[in-house]
Amino acid sequence: MVHNYSLRVRYGETDQMGRVHHASFLHYLETARIEMLRDLGWPYADLEIQGFLLPVIDLSIQYKKAVIYDEVVRVQTTVSITGLFRMDFEYHLFVLDNIVATAQVQLACVSKEGLRPVALPELLVKSIEQVNLNAL
Amino acid sequence: MVHNYSLRVRYGETDQMGRVHHASFLHYLETARIEMLRDLGWPYADLEIQGFLLPVIDLSIQYKKAVIYDEVVRVQTTVSITGLFRMDFEYHLFVLDNIVATAQVQLACVSKEGLRPVALPELLVKSIEQVNLNAL
Amino acid sequence: MVHNYSLRVRYGETDQMGRVHHASFLHYLETARIEMLRDLGWPYADLEIQGFLLPVIDLSIQYKKAVIYDEVVRVQTTVSITGLFRMDFEYHLFVLDNIVATAQVQLACVSKEGLRPVALPELLVKSIEQVNLNAL
Amino acid sequence: MVHNYSLRVRYGETDQMGRVHHASFLHYLETARIEMLRDLGWPYADLEIQGFLLPVIDLSIQYKKAVIYDEVVRVQTTVSITGLFRMDFEYHLFVLDNIVATAQVQLACVSKEGLRPVALPELLVKSIEQVNLNAL
Repeated sequence: MVHNYSLRVRYGETDQMGRVHHASFLHYLETARIEMLRDLGWPYADLEIQGFLLPVIDLSIQYKKAVIYDEVVRVQTTVSITGLFRMDFEYHLFVLDNIVATAQVQLACVSKEGLRPVALPELLVKSIEQVNLNAL
Repeated sequence: MVHNYSLRVRYGETDQMGRVHHASFLHYLETARIEMLRDLGWPYADLEIQGFLLPVIDLSIQYKKAVIYDEVVRVQTTVSITGLFRMDFEYHLFVLDNIVATAQVQLACVSKEGLRPVALPELLVKSIEQVNLNAL
Repeated sequence: MVHNYSLRVRYGETDQMGRVHHASFLHYLETARIEMLRDLGWPYADLEIQGFLLPVIDLSIQYKKAVIYDEVVRVQTTVSITGLFRMDFEYHLFVLDNIVATAQVQLACVSKEGLRPVALPELLVKSIEQVNLNAL
Repeated sequence: MVHNYSLRVRYGETDQMGRVHHASFLHYLETARIEMLRDLGWPYADLEIQGFLLPVIDLSIQYKKAVIYDEVVRVQTTVSITGLFRMDFEYHLFVLDNIVATAQVQLACVSKEGLRPVALPELLVKSIEQVNLNAL
């Protein structure tokens, strides 16, 4: 399943190079995967209430083209389950039809109490595997 | 008591106007008052552990001169107790000898559990009143 | 003319108090006034290309209620021309029907080259005065 | 040459998980490499004045341990020249003696005018190669 989410660059996300600061992209990635989970029926806020945290444990990003103020960035996201405790997100970011960045983000699942690794909610795993299957 | 704290502008705090983004100043104010409290013997982390939160409830800032990347900003802070639940911070920000901004920030004291207004720790109030008295 | 713009709180805009960090609100205010200007026919990016910068020179904000992750904030904005070089924005921020903050922001108009005060574009002034008149 | 730079976690850099937001680390990496360049005699502000920009083109980070508010993070940096237009930074981040993250960042050198790839300043390349040689 390929999820698309678009957002417009905010002024405060630029830096004096006249482009989006490279750290701002991480907020775009985060927002896009959260909207993807919401569309799958799993609002992240609910996951935290149920006692799960999903911290980022590994992140890689390749910046291919400067993005500037006021441009609309389309974040294309796919997700896969890569273990009991892990989800991998794969990203392609576009401005119009130009690819501006690619990224890979790995999340772990930990318990809110005790911060110990804990299996991802079974239903979440199933719904992700189902939509990925449907997308084949 | 006048407290001084200096910090250097980070690249990511600028925007495409080529100056510090106006929201970045709020992080300078926050860092300066936290370092002031630390110097008074009240690390903010300890206050939270003891069950107190100090959210900002009112903030005014007057931007007088653009601050640019890599400049060192000296934040001059004074604090006063303005009620059982309130502290007022007054700021003057300088680059070299030039004033670049002034600001006023009001914090409330609320309980971490229940988020209800709660009296500031008595000892904190006393230590602030004492240093202000000594400074006269 | 009252302009409404809604945005959803991003995860990275919260802090460990479990609420939106107070500096994040400034990005909401900025985004809302930029969208207001766009709706008036004045994309801010164009203003910069034409040689105008609109830095914030004065800002006040009153935080009335904690805003939490994933809530949708509606920013209600009005603008008035308060001089040759100045625009004043007045804000009311809501979550559902609850007011969560109010704010006042003053922008100056300066030239991109030389950073000198310069009169606001006449047509911009006229379009603002017109919509305000129509709104009476 | 191994460069060390320490900074204290700011309150606004945390999120509601009660730890440093993963995007905040990118500001630490940026600040550390800028301080390294300064110590090598190359303040980044001067490089921009001379017409060079050093945007990030590739970044990977492995988060190993949560970092919390008020902790002091020591960023250990090494740099190498990996081409006419490229510098690679390698990072190890510590809190006390515990490693909390590792990271790799690649910068490109582009001209401020025209944003075209341009060779790194020869003297900068020489001073980096010299300190790396000395460190053997």
